Amino acid sequence: MNQGWLRRALAAKRDGDALDDGTWHRIIAGYAAGEIDDAPVAALAMACAIRGMAPDEISALTDAMVRSGDVLRFGGGRTVVDKHSSGGVGDTVSLIVVPLVAACGVPVAKLSGRALGHTGGTLDKLEAIPGVRTDLGNDAFVAQVESIGCAIAAQSERLVPADKKLYKLRDRTGTVPSTGLIAASIVSKKIAGGAGAIVFDVKAGSGAFMRTLADATALARTLVRLAAGFGRRSSALVSDMEEPLGAAVGSGIEAVEARDFLRGDDRDPRLAEAAFAVAHEMLRVGGVDEREIEPRALDALQSGAAYERFAQLVEAQGGTRAALDAIAPHPHRATAVAASDGVVTAIDAAAIGELARDLTAADGPFAGLRIVARVGTPVRAGDVLAECAGPSASPQAVARAFTVGTHAPPPRKLIETVVRDADLATLVN
Amino acid sequence: MNQGWLRRALAAKRDGDALDDGTWHRIIAGYAAGEIDDAPVAALAMACAIRGMAPDEISALTDAMVRSGDVLRFGGGRTVVDKHSSGGVGDTVSLIVVPLVAACGVPVAKLSGRALGHTGGTLDKLEAIPGVRTDLGNDAFVAQVESIGCAIAAQSERLVPADKKLYKLRDRTGTVPSTGLIAASIVSKKIAGGAGAIVFDVKAGSGAFMRTLADATALARTLVRLAAGFGRRSSALVSDMEEPLGAAVGSGIEAVEARDFLRGDDRDPRLAEAAFAVAHEMLRVGGVDEREIEPRALDALQSGAAYERFAQLVEAQGGTRAALDAIAPHPHRATAVAASDGVVTAIDAAAIGELARDLTAADGPFAGLRIVARVGTPVRAGDVLAECAGPSASPQAVARAFTVGTHAPPPRKLIETVVRDADLATLVN
Repeated sequence: MNQGWLRRALAAKRDGDALDDGTWHRIIAGYAAGEIDDAPVAALAMACAIRGMAPDEISALTDAMVRSGDVLRFGGGRTVVDKHSSGGVGDTVSLIVVPLVAACGVPVAKLSGRALGHTGGTLDKLEAIPGVRTDLGNDAFVAQVESIGCAIAAQSERLVPADKKLYKLRDRTGTVPSTGLIAASIVSKKIAGGAGAIVFDVKAGSGAFMRTLADATALARTLVRLAAGFGRRSSALVSDMEEPLGAAVGSGIEAVEARDFLRGDDRDPRLAEAAFAVAHEMLRVGGVDEREIEPRALDALQSGAAYERFAQLVEAQGGTRAALDAIAPHPHRATAVAASDGVVTAIDAAAIGELARDLTAADGPFAGLRIVARVGTPVRAGDVLAECAGPSASPQAVARAFTVGTHAPPPRKLIETVVRDADLATLVN
Repeated sequence: MNQGWLRRALAAKRDGDALDDGTWHRIIAGYAAGEIDDAPVAALAMACAIRGMAPDEISALTDAMVRSGDVLRFGGGRTVVDKHSSGGVGDTVSLIVVPLVAACGVPVAKLSGRALGHTGGTLDKLEAIPGVRTDLGNDAFVAQVESIGCAIAAQSERLVPADKKLYKLRDRTGTVPSTGLIAASIVSKKIAGGAGAIVFDVKAGSGAFMRTLADATALARTLVRLAAGFGRRSSALVSDMEEPLGAAVGSGIEAVEARDFLRGDDRDPRLAEAAFAVAHEMLRVGGVDEREIEPRALDALQSGAAYERFAQLVEAQGGTRAALDAIAPHPHRATAVAASDGVVTAIDAAAIGELARDLTAADGPFAGLRIVARVGTPVRAGDVLAECAGPSASPQAVARAFTVGTHAPPPRKLIETVVRDADLATLVN
């Protein structure tokens, strides 16, 4: 097979030129069909990571990836919203906002991923509830959204198979951090999943894949612009991931936290701020009038409608209300304490995420950690920094993820910025 | 197999950092052994092509490639010289200088390649002489150099196998044009081939792989610096390839041209200038005193000693003197003529190379072209531009490779510059 056109395309991208639509479609179709092997695609991904990608290239790649598999369609004439987080630690937002937004009358079709590296995965959290399944299949997923207004499912193998193949390749060839490739991967999955509107939550900081605010903001703008090109309303939040988002870290105990949050038993203020901000944008892109958003969301929470929707989702996906009521953190507890007086100046979110991951692997899904002392909290030697659930926990290792210093660091905003499709015209880049 | 170290290395190179010696050795050893597949190496090659390579990286890669296979060693205590050309059209220099330099008392162990793209290959030219073999095997190659002072052979599969694998990969992933990767490929083969001193002939122009003088000069400097790091004396010429070098283009008729040149029957002045410049540098790095070089070389030619050495080489490699005497261009002739009056302003060397290649493929090794009108030659309509040998020749197509204009272009130097190891300390980069 003569692949001179491919060699010329690689040379052009190597030299900083943009590839045209047809070339992107030909590469992705050939790669998905196994007619193009890993090597030229790895070289292309490296060239994209170093040279960047023009907006038209990102659109072409996204479209080509969508066409590599099935595309879901929802009936009923209402805009179905999906939400994406770029991955963080203690990020229980999806389990909260999916039923909350559905309870406000906007259907949510949430396609989720597994835990990746030190970050948690929504599927793992939901499956910690006994009986709950996330491998719904395309038809059952669509039917559930149409009947109870929400579903959280694993993306089927038939959606965007080219992305799966490309992501695996990027993961082992040092080509994950490319704004264009990341944006195409995210948006192609949402388009194929049938989302009519999308909210992106781009995490920035040491606990996120985007380390800097500048990188995260660039990705947020790219995502919103890309979605707009496909006729999708969207918002992208850039939110802080310098420390874990919610208090709970670990798959099952994050499910417990989401349940308690929705039921009104316990609402961590950081998690509440993040969840409200995301829900606000989901309702906005879902077509709810700006003035109605806050009252509707508060009513859904206070009336118990949001919790009821969560219970319905659990039941529809194979669990029971009894099982949802019964989940609780592992009973074996220990505390990680401060070694000296001072103020918490930093919490290593990646280290916390890894410790929680190792703990659930050893002691089951309801082992994990609960952050007690936040960045900025004054502590005395012996004060509790975090609670550990599970006999394999090493409180000393957990305590080492906290830095106790003498001066409180300047406060950081949890939501750094929100990029909205309506603002696109005013964006410089 | 956990290749986290490899992923980190790729990420570092992607971000413009240099990889250390150990990492280069580990990558090449793993790739040669099949423990690392094509994809990460293709990504790495692309990062090298875009980001460049530090001198220490090029040395480490070269060393790692040498260690992937056998290394030849010559006895007798004399420095054995090899010569490399980066590939051109009508470049018959090797067939001339190998016996010439040997006849001057400096042994030459020439490892050569096949035709690549539009450029000719020394092995193909030599094998056009009936009976001559170039697959000598390591032991016979070394023995022939030790007995008659020269040999021209194909590199055995056991020399630098990592380079063969890497070159194939680069060829299909758009990563051939990287000064560092090119230099490592060239020098590793010469080191493994046992060369104690090396002359590089870097071609620049539209008929060469290096299109610009700046790229060619950068490669020349990199080659000499790299060779010096391995304790090898060397020179690198940068020579013009805007038009074919010698008059003859085509494997067999270049062998005829070399024979006639050595025998004194016919010496194309451009080819003579190039051959003397290369021979001069080979004798210099081979340890001949500067003042002795010219008289010795002229004497070897005029006495017939150089031709005698060529005949010995042909015999040692399976041919006969009778066969060498008998070779002649294909008897079917046609002429490509000028369509208008003017002056030859350009000759498309790549097109000439491709036409000659197609012609030998159709009509056998002694089909080909002979350039009659050089750049700068005044012509009248109907004047001969080139002679074509072989019934499949299209004189019209050959004529189209010549541009006839109204003003002679400014003359170009055939040898643009010579980078010598002795000058290294004064090189800025």
